[in-house]
Amino acid sequence: MRAAGSAASGATAYVTLEPCSHYGRTPPCADALIEAGIARVVTASTDPNPRVSGRGLDRLREAGVAVTDGLMAAQSERLNPGFFRRMRAGLPYVRAKVAASLDGRTAMASGESRWITGAAARRDVHRLRALSSAVVTGVDTVIADDPQLTVRDWDEAFLPPRRVVIDSQLRMPTESGLLADEQGVVVIHGGTMPAREPDLVRSGAELWQVALTEEGHVGPVAALEALAGVEVNEVLVEAGPRLVGAWIQAGVVDELIVYLAPHLMGHEGNPMLTLPGLDTMDDRLGLETLDIRQFGDDLRLTFRVGERKED
Amino acid sequence: MRAAGSAASGATAYVTLEPCSHYGRTPPCADALIEAGIARVVTASTDPNPRVSGRGLDRLREAGVAVTDGLMAAQSERLNPGFFRRMRAGLPYVRAKVAASLDGRTAMASGESRWITGAAARRDVHRLRALSSAVVTGVDTVIADDPQLTVRDWDEAFLPPRRVVIDSQLRMPTESGLLADEQGVVVIHGGTMPAREPDLVRSGAELWQVALTEEGHVGPVAALEALAGVEVNEVLVEAGPRLVGAWIQAGVVDELIVYLAPHLMGHEGNPMLTLPGLDTMDDRLGLETLDIRQFGDDLRLTFRVGERKED
Repeated sequence: MRAAGSAASGATAYVTLEPCSHYGRTPPCADALIEAGIARVVTASTDPNPRVSGRGLDRLREAGVAVTDGLMAAQSERLNPGFFRRMRAGLPYVRAKVAASLDGRTAMASGESRWITGAAARRDVHRLRALSSAVVTGVDTVIADDPQLTVRDWDEAFLPPRRVVIDSQLRMPTESGLLADEQGVVVIHGGTMPAREPDLVRSGAELWQVALTEEGHVGPVAALEALAGVEVNEVLVEAGPRLVGAWIQAGVVDELIVYLAPHLMGHEGNPMLTLPGLDTMDDRLGLETLDIRQFGDDLRLTFRVGERKED
Repeated sequence: MRAAGSAASGATAYVTLEPCSHYGRTPPCADALIEAGIARVVTASTDPNPRVSGRGLDRLREAGVAVTDGLMAAQSERLNPGFFRRMRAGLPYVRAKVAASLDGRTAMASGESRWITGAAARRDVHRLRALSSAVVTGVDTVIADDPQLTVRDWDEAFLPPRRVVIDSQLRMPTESGLLADEQGVVVIHGGTMPAREPDLVRSGAELWQVALTEEGHVGPVAALEALAGVEVNEVLVEAGPRLVGAWIQAGVVDELIVYLAPHLMGHEGNPMLTLPGLDTMDDRLGLETLDIRQFGDDLRLTFRVGERKED
């Protein structure tokens, strides 16, 4: 609009999100459109923030601008699912990623698990991390695999995702690879091990304390609310079968992404997910297939979890 | 050629398999081509039967017919993999079919397993049966699920596949559904339970006795050799995780077909395959992806098993 100058007068502006009517990081967009003499505004989505939703469109209409709302609203929301989810539900949009063999195993009987998938699939995981505001893992995975959870091979200018460890009892080793670089790591814990805190802080960890569940765990909702509190919109969970299984059963996972490698690891290996209490066919957790794609020899399957539809 | 009559004289004939030079169910095809005055014969595959391979082409050449061999040989063999396998190796071509949830389970913790996949996938299984000369299951599956293993919805004129039960100790119940219709069932056993034999024969079973393995089982090679002996070319194995797993580990399965349903059945359910002794990543059984397809909500994945390439 700035580049168009006076040529913008009388024009139609197409925008994905409702122009705002308040002072945030920038002055109100609605005012800028009015001042530029825009005659008509077509928007995809109204602002999901309940405090401001509809106000921008009202301001435009009051100034005599023609407004059409809701063009390709669903497609527009899919561009930024975490923003809409957080504004409406106070929680981020959560993807969980699993790499398994065809027979649903994430480690051999010996515990060995590197690498289940090939280079192309692993590179795609870095893309998933790159589009996330936070990558969450569990302390058991940190202890077993000592992952880096960094984004490699995607060196466009972007903010690397926060790396987050769910660690109810602060068992995180100070020599973890996550603490060895400058990117920082958030450790979400229950505050029950105060003696462990100074060492971890000195090693570079940022400690967030939340209320534990009755079972003594950092619950998924508490962790996700804390992340939403620092404007984390999209979360990628890369953890072991127990944490991912528990988060799925808690109903907080929106998307399950499974990289399936074409080999058999055997029934003595680790299960893909730990999902206790499913006894009969009626207890099954339903998934909706969103996407099927090959990466090298591996298959990537993307599912919407549960019956939950778009809010 | 018969329809062409004298117009066949001087023509080129394209045939998938080498014309035979011997009297079988029909007189020698090579002689017929020569008598019709065919000038040139183009074939895809030479006859894989070592007793006659090449003789038909020799006979044509001796009669002055120009011969070109090997056009699209691989494609031609894929039309009839069991015939080529049996002629060369004395064993049928074996497909194993499994229906599982995304997390690799074939039954719930309660044992419940009907239906894992939807109607479209189940209909495709009937197509697989229809292209097989025999459908093989284990007696444990007969006892647990009482399957019919018939071909429904494919009423073109064709020979229904033999239904075969692997039943080392003759535990097959005489009231099994497989014995209730007129299609017949072959029960392959070890001859260790002679007292059970008359009842089963009276119920309509055809009993085949083979030598048991040292562990007291009907071994896959013994069963498949017996089937090859009655000209069974293509076998579909539809059995439980133990039988399918054992046959895969014995190296007799050529193709693994997995129908993957988009739901989670939980780690307490039955495993997709029982594959004992796989401890480290080097022990994994490699697969080669041949085909990926959706049937309704389910995914069908087809793999070549192991490193074995086309003979």
